Amino acid sequence: MNETLVTVVGNVATTPVFRELASGPVARFRLAVTARYYDAVQNVWADGHTNFFTVWAKRSLGSNVQGSLAIGEPVIVQGRLKVRDEERGGQHWTSADIDAITIGHDLSRGTSAFRRVLKANTALTEAAGAREPERDPEPEPVG
Amino acid sequence: MNETLVTVVGNVATTPVFRELASGPVARFRLAVTARYYDAVQNVWADGHTNFFTVWAKRSLGSNVQGSLAIGEPVIVQGRLKVRDEERGGQHWTSADIDAITIGHDLSRGTSAFRRVLKANTALTEAAGAREPERDPEPEPVG
Amino acid sequence: MNETLVTVVGNVATTPVFRELASGPVARFRLAVTARYYDAVQNVWADGHTNFFTVWAKRSLGSNVQGSLAIGEPVIVQGRLKVRDEERGGQHWTSADIDAITIGHDLSRGTSAFRRVLKANTALTEAAGAREPERDPEPEPVG
Amino acid sequence: MNETLVTVVGNVATTPVFRELASGPVARFRLAVTARYYDAVQNVWADGHTNFFTVWAKRSLGSNVQGSLAIGEPVIVQGRLKVRDEERGGQHWTSADIDAITIGHDLSRGTSAFRRVLKANTALTEAAGAREPERDPEPEPVG
Repeated sequence: MNETLVTVVGNVATTPVFRELASGPVARFRLAVTARYYDAVQNVWADGHTNFFTVWAKRSLGSNVQGSLAIGEPVIVQGRLKVRDEERGGQHWTSADIDAITIGHDLSRGTSAFRRVLKANTALTEAAGAREPERDPEPEPVG
Repeated sequence: MNETLVTVVGNVATTPVFRELASGPVARFRLAVTARYYDAVQNVWADGHTNFFTVWAKRSLGSNVQGSLAIGEPVIVQGRLKVRDEERGGQHWTSADIDAITIGHDLSRGTSAFRRVLKANTALTEAAGAREPERDPEPEPVG
Repeated sequence: MNETLVTVVGNVATTPVFRELASGPVARFRLAVTARYYDAVQNVWADGHTNFFTVWAKRSLGSNVQGSLAIGEPVIVQGRLKVRDEERGGQHWTSADIDAITIGHDLSRGTSAFRRVLKANTALTEAAGAREPERDPEPEPVG
Repeated sequence: MNETLVTVVGNVATTPVFRELASGPVARFRLAVTARYYDAVQNVWADGHTNFFTVWAKRSLGSNVQGSLAIGEPVIVQGRLKVRDEERGGQHWTSADIDAITIGHDLSRGTSAFRRVLKANTALTEAAGAREPERDPEPEPVG
């Protein structure tokens, strides 16, 4: 409840980084989301502000991101927004992360060939105590 | 403004039907979206209510849907919800349509290989007066 | 998971109907949501399609709706969309319901004076076993 | 298109600051949004991560926020998310702003009495060239 769910459409801005952690696979990448608006004076569509997010994909979504996404590709991402404020070395940092629920290639920009992955290993991991996404209040840090 | 934007994650429930209209390509399919909830008594996740939508994909999104999606595949769809009430033959009908902005294969269920499609023909069509999605108040009917 | 969360901005189209059920208070009303779009030819904003929803508000939200909302007032509603298909008397019916999580008067149209309501009775009800909104897969029917 | 629309439910964390600018009224405040999650081990609902946003309300929404919202009150906010990165004095800053479309008091927490405000002055301003919200790519800074 009161989660900040977002759906964003943008481009993969960095090559996904993948790790196998004790809690399961994790992939992360930067996402660039550029608003488009209609300029009524010029009568054209133009680029507006670009939002950058760090997207985290865990468990089977993490493995499949690793096997599917490359830098520059257009994607749609749905997930939970986490705005973080930190103090590090006397400096104040804020970051905007998305803990992804689902990611897909944007079919308005091209075609995609899908191959279903059986969740055998994931099922075992989950049976061993891994939490379901909805009950996952905080993403584990990936070094 | 005041559009009903939705993002839904579900499965393609019918084979996409494709048409080339004067206004451009259009694909449509039925989408099944089943809520999952945590049953605290049984301590398991279970299926809840299933929403069915008719998804409409137009222009380049329509062509790419035709070249990418098959029945049964898991997808994420973002678009504008249209709830329609009609009187036909003395009967009252309601339908729930989504005028899709973006569609992608759900990478939490498998991998996808993406191929960018150049928008040459679409660009020509748009230059000839086709409206951009945001300025498109009503989907054209597909017979 | 995979719930169809929507946020809609519209007007209360029917006087809210209120019931005290064994499971707690429930209010319901019809909501009219009219899309606005920019007509580039006429250079004006115009009305598009109107979506109608039946909004259900339960527990403390239901009581407060009863004490706050009147027909014609502009509101923002966030909730879970339920598209229902039924067969009644040989006829096929579909309805679009929203199981509301939050409702508020739309401050872009006017001002509102807020008064906090203590959740004493609700807390007792919940302690007695009422389910939290997120774990509530299906709204109870209100005759 | 490709805007990052968010709907958040939280509490007003700072007293709204109001300015009358040449472009119209503007109000801003900080909003605290605390996720709630179900702790299956303890069998209780608990607080998760808190997101902080700076919310900007312009034109008639700005005036009405000024006349309606006080620190600590629970609200629902729908708007466009802007994540900003800046370099100031050799330091790197990020902030998460919401350019609000609609704001309302959260009726799950209390009651609200609404009073419609006629848009006479706003209409004049808009006729004189003010942009409609949807065509507003960047919020004006408020000193």
